Amino acid sequence: MFMPQLRSAACSISRAQGSFSRFSTSVNLKDNRAIIYSSNGTPPDVLTAVSYPSLSDPSPNTVNIKYLLSPINPSDINVIEGRYVEAASRANIGEHSDVFVAGNEALAEVIAIGDGVTEIKKGSWVVMGKEQSGTWRSQANVRAEDLVQVPEGASEVGAATISINPPSAYGMLSQFVDLKAGDWLIQNGANSAVGQAVIQIAAARGVKTINLVRSRRDGLGALRKELYGLGATQVATYDDIAHKSFRETVKGWTKGKEILLGLNCVGGPAATDMARYLGNDAFLVSYGAMAKQPLALPTSLFIFKNLKSVGYSLYRPGEAYKTREGRDRVMHTLVGLMKEGKLKDPEHEILTLEAGESNEDVSKKIRDVLVKLSEGRYGKKVLLRVEGN
Amino acid sequence: MFMPQLRSAACSISRAQGSFSRFSTSVNLKDNRAIIYSSNGTPPDVLTAVSYPSLSDPSPNTVNIKYLLSPINPSDINVIEGRYVEAASRANIGEHSDVFVAGNEALAEVIAIGDGVTEIKKGSWVVMGKEQSGTWRSQANVRAEDLVQVPEGASEVGAATISINPPSAYGMLSQFVDLKAGDWLIQNGANSAVGQAVIQIAAARGVKTINLVRSRRDGLGALRKELYGLGATQVATYDDIAHKSFRETVKGWTKGKEILLGLNCVGGPAATDMARYLGNDAFLVSYGAMAKQPLALPTSLFIFKNLKSVGYSLYRPGEAYKTREGRDRVMHTLVGLMKEGKLKDPEHEILTLEAGESNEDVSKKIRDVLVKLSEGRYGKKVLLRVEGN
Repeated sequence: MFMPQLRSAACSISRAQGSFSRFSTSVNLKDNRAIIYSSNGTPPDVLTAVSYPSLSDPSPNTVNIKYLLSPINPSDINVIEGRYVEAASRANIGEHSDVFVAGNEALAEVIAIGDGVTEIKKGSWVVMGKEQSGTWRSQANVRAEDLVQVPEGASEVGAATISINPPSAYGMLSQFVDLKAGDWLIQNGANSAVGQAVIQIAAARGVKTINLVRSRRDGLGALRKELYGLGATQVATYDDIAHKSFRETVKGWTKGKEILLGLNCVGGPAATDMARYLGNDAFLVSYGAMAKQPLALPTSLFIFKNLKSVGYSLYRPGEAYKTREGRDRVMHTLVGLMKEGKLKDPEHEILTLEAGESNEDVSKKIRDVLVKLSEGRYGKKVLLRVEGN
Repeated sequence: MFMPQLRSAACSISRAQGSFSRFSTSVNLKDNRAIIYSSNGTPPDVLTAVSYPSLSDPSPNTVNIKYLLSPINPSDINVIEGRYVEAASRANIGEHSDVFVAGNEALAEVIAIGDGVTEIKKGSWVVMGKEQSGTWRSQANVRAEDLVQVPEGASEVGAATISINPPSAYGMLSQFVDLKAGDWLIQNGANSAVGQAVIQIAAARGVKTINLVRSRRDGLGALRKELYGLGATQVATYDDIAHKSFRETVKGWTKGKEILLGLNCVGGPAATDMARYLGNDAFLVSYGAMAKQPLALPTSLFIFKNLKSVGYSLYRPGEAYKTREGRDRVMHTLVGLMKEGKLKDPEHEILTLEAGESNEDVSKKIRDVLVKLSEGRYGKKVLLRVEGN
């Protein structure tokens, strides 16, 4: 876990003297902005925008980075709420000591390089190699070894969203079942960021996907079209699969081939129902619990069908993605797919927290977005562009 | 799946003419007895005792066997109810065509050998190598290849109960986690036949066990004593583990060592609670569902603790025990433990269905036992000794 290294001496001086007179005259107390919280809670209640000084020159083996785009991922909300196993590390941000900076994923540009840094060049695009580093901010000083360079060829949005969801999809498609062209998988939460990456990575390999989504009052037309556009083989709803008669429909799709892999980010009945569609010796891989209900599975599936229920986390010890080599390999594969047009930018909206806005206005803006997100009122990925002020 | 091979010609003659005049004069229509059912249902409702003729000489590659002891296992009841994935095969028993013989496990003695049978000798003790062959009966003609010889040194009760529960325990202790002396496992249903075998096989290897049982109105003293007598390291109740504070107790037992394996034959809350005691990367192996409730597990255990929930069945395709070689190896290991006194006969009661009793009386007797069993009024394994009449 790394933390932005504002020099603590600077911070203590800042708090004690209200100035940065020891540093160069270019230091401006309000050059940067971060979205922070000092205790866990509902994001709109605890998040606030604050300012902090411009960075000094990077110390050896560190670099200064400027965040270009920082996605808001569902797990960010869990972290802020304190319901995630990984907490953010505490940091001192300007006058605010011992606080958390929100955000886990980001694309950043390297703007200054400390002594001893050889692999990363000024101007490089980098993503975070460590969890929960606090990315909803404008700039930070970080250890070079905690960054991952993005291979050439990715778009800005693609690069900003490359380090969590697509590698999760890639990992789940690679680690449990040796899927070959023509094999079938089934997933719920198919329109999630991971779900969409699963569809595309599977399609690129010729693997067939059954994609489950919630029924919608306003119809499924647009969503179906979007998922088919990504390469989905079939799309169905949680209501569909709850009916036993739907098994015949699915058998028709798969021509009787067994479904080898189930990917679950929902839990509750949507996961239980999905598990019944899995063939013998299948893996059910859970990577989320959007329904906030446990995974309830009939024991008979384990005993008689040899179901294997496992979990997936990109950040688990031993996960290939935790090593630099593994991460580089996955990153190159993913950017390769992006360049071939096989892994598209997610549907997104960029929310710029502009330099000219007051911290009060920015705080309100971010709270409003998080309320809308928690109410499911965004169909799109929201990415923050945090400018200084 | 094998079935007793009453020659079908004989059966059709029997039904057509009511006699076995084509066969030797020693054939007696009432020499044998079987507990049968013609359709699935609650055992006391559907089971009935019937008679059938003595066997003719075995045809090539078959042997005639006399059943010595046939256990009543919980899964037998599920099979009769039709709630088990494996159904019994239909057979013709005397005048009763197209019926099921109850029972899956048994110790039998070989009483006559057909041409071509070389490995099995007259007088040998054998157990069933095929599932659901129908063992609650006095005699049968079976294919020699469907039998497994019991190595020398087992007791009659030990041999009669060796082919399902101890190998299940052995398989679950061997296949998922490489347990070393000093490692810990936790299991529910610890006083079940499998649970008791787990305790003993684990103890023989120096593996520590936490054994969970139901709280009892009349106290746990006797049960605890019994399980400690088998080698249990610790005994606790489902109520105990439901309290979060109990985790400290368990940590004290394990001295902070992680519990690597959980064995579940209960499901429902007893399994959910138990799963929370498992360490990182542990396996939860389910082999039964006595509570008749699904296995409900928090998704977080899968994602953050890398829990792997799997099932175990002795009869799964690919299970080593399904091969003759694998079965022989397990059987020798188990009889070896028996001879060393490390795998004891289960607490049991033998119910003899005596030769002199009428089928009506025998039917009533067996129904009464099954009612008592379904009400949990037997603490012991019941073994049938089905004599002819």
